[in-house]
Amino acid sequence: MRWPAGADFEILDQRALPGREVFIPLRSATGTAHAIRDLAVRGAPAIGCTAAFGIAVEALNAVDVPPAMFAARLEAAFVELAASRPTAINLFWALDRMRAAWKTCAAESTRSVATRLRAEAQTIFDEDIAANRRMGEFGAMLVPDGARILTHCNAGALATAGHGTALGVIRSAVAAGKKVEVFADETRPVLQGARLTAWELHRDGIPVTLLPDVAAASLLASGRIDLVIVGADRIAANGDVANKVGTYPLAVLARRHGVQFHVAAPRSTFDFSMPDGASIPIEQRGAGEVLGYGTERWAPDVPVFNPAFDVTPAGLVSTIITEDGLIPGPDASKVAAFRVGATVRETRIR
Amino acid sequence: MRWPAGADFEILDQRALPGREVFIPLRSATGTAHAIRDLAVRGAPAIGCTAAFGIAVEALNAVDVPPAMFAARLEAAFVELAASRPTAINLFWALDRMRAAWKTCAAESTRSVATRLRAEAQTIFDEDIAANRRMGEFGAMLVPDGARILTHCNAGALATAGHGTALGVIRSAVAAGKKVEVFADETRPVLQGARLTAWELHRDGIPVTLLPDVAAASLLASGRIDLVIVGADRIAANGDVANKVGTYPLAVLARRHGVQFHVAAPRSTFDFSMPDGASIPIEQRGAGEVLGYGTERWAPDVPVFNPAFDVTPAGLVSTIITEDGLIPGPDASKVAAFRVGATVRETRIR
Repeated sequence: MRWPAGADFEILDQRALPGREVFIPLRSATGTAHAIRDLAVRGAPAIGCTAAFGIAVEALNAVDVPPAMFAARLEAAFVELAASRPTAINLFWALDRMRAAWKTCAAESTRSVATRLRAEAQTIFDEDIAANRRMGEFGAMLVPDGARILTHCNAGALATAGHGTALGVIRSAVAAGKKVEVFADETRPVLQGARLTAWELHRDGIPVTLLPDVAAASLLASGRIDLVIVGADRIAANGDVANKVGTYPLAVLARRHGVQFHVAAPRSTFDFSMPDGASIPIEQRGAGEVLGYGTERWAPDVPVFNPAFDVTPAGLVSTIITEDGLIPGPDASKVAAFRVGATVRETRIR
Repeated sequence: MRWPAGADFEILDQRALPGREVFIPLRSATGTAHAIRDLAVRGAPAIGCTAAFGIAVEALNAVDVPPAMFAARLEAAFVELAASRPTAINLFWALDRMRAAWKTCAAESTRSVATRLRAEAQTIFDEDIAANRRMGEFGAMLVPDGARILTHCNAGALATAGHGTALGVIRSAVAAGKKVEVFADETRPVLQGARLTAWELHRDGIPVTLLPDVAAASLLASGRIDLVIVGADRIAANGDVANKVGTYPLAVLARRHGVQFHVAAPRSTFDFSMPDGASIPIEQRGAGEVLGYGTERWAPDVPVFNPAFDVTPAGLVSTIITEDGLIPGPDASKVAAFRVGATVRETRIR
């Protein structure tokens, strides 16, 4: 995403990747909410950043309306963006930060508020990149030289402000001189692995092999994977992880075959108010994603079960990799310690 | 598949389903081998039947050539058909039966041999339907009224001479008056679940819900599945099951969540010479199946890992359902007993 001075806020339209690299302008909160709902931008941290910018865009649009109406429009923008997708907590986290920033200057002129909100969105964005880079450095300690790494969905630069969470760890390992080989689940139904992860890694010159999600079990069983790294959309207070559907079976198979299963996610992905994964709302998406793709339609008109996310119990997670250190063997007490700032820097390299 | 008197042998082209119902003529062994390799026909029992008919077609084509050349052409047909796909044992089983039939009449006229081979192919076909119906009756004992059944790939009428193995069990349960609800994995990469299983069940008026393969874990974890039934491409002497890729992770998840996992397969799917699943050759298929679909191409040009099958250890299988009875908790001794004709009729209804 980019917002050059004097121009529109724009995002790279991830629906068009990898075929076309198209930036689309987001000129209102409504347009931003639509872009999030329709997956033009996806990935928990990226959704958070985009929503923050959407608030700033709406504030700038409204600087010339009377203050009471300005506040009402901003309020509506918060409501609309919060309703765009339910599972990734970063969305609500970013909106909460924007609201807090607004509160500090609500008595000022509309232009001053808008300027302040744009600055706060930019700060959220900048902090996310910085967090990813620190996360990458911590996570790289878990990646042995020559590692064969399995990943699911896209937890890359596209899913964040930049660098990536799971792919950020891989990028940092490569930057540290380690040789790695990545196996990317294609990630049905929206194919973020095939379209985005394969594209990101291929562009970076990092060896990547694509596979149908169900073939990951064969790879794990054959001993050809050294570790799994995925991102997260929401982490509960007990360490349970909501992430792209297919993460949970991958974690079960990794455990069965003695393969480390790491989750890379920034602090903004933690929902300390959520006691466990069972309480995390799981988005159900439409049938169209499953019945076909693009102009191809391959299934008859039958009902579809299409949850966008699943929940991996903390007990199946080897390590949560954060920008403040590693949380090995996450559980409620370790997440509570992490919440108040204790960092866990021990590593569990196999 | 159909072979009306005086006309070509034809198969329903499964590549065109569910969009179009097109029968294509198979006029030679080479054409038949190509149809098998290219998935115009698939499913272990259906492949066996088709290959048997392919031998008969080739024999009828060659009735007017000198006997030595007739024998050489038949021999070449056996070799070519045996090389069409490597994993489903029914292919080799059917070819062995056709070869044995040939031996009994090799000294007779070419026309007599051809007539005999056509009759043998028809017998294999008829026996497969009969086996599926018996299998269905045994299997239906494992299906409680109101059962919510998960299946993977297509083990239906299309995968057999008719009725189906896994779907045959479901059809027999429905015929016995039981109410069932089927959840069908879409089965990437070739989408046999979305294209074929959903189509078959929808046509039969059996309620079916389609899901991405990775969403099956969420269904199993949520307690919304009572049992899993799948087919098989080859069953080893110890009860290990090679079946469509994705079967193994499904079995692991079913076990984790205490859900019965049944395999429906005829005697012709057993490979008593194969000590265990690790020795079963697993077909690797091309990248095209994973990089896109039809005219849509969604992934960059990266290497692909695309095994067509995986192996489920016998220990994860609740019951093997055969035309000669049930094999609960399959292992080497139970499969050996089954081989020599002992049938196990006890059931394990949950």
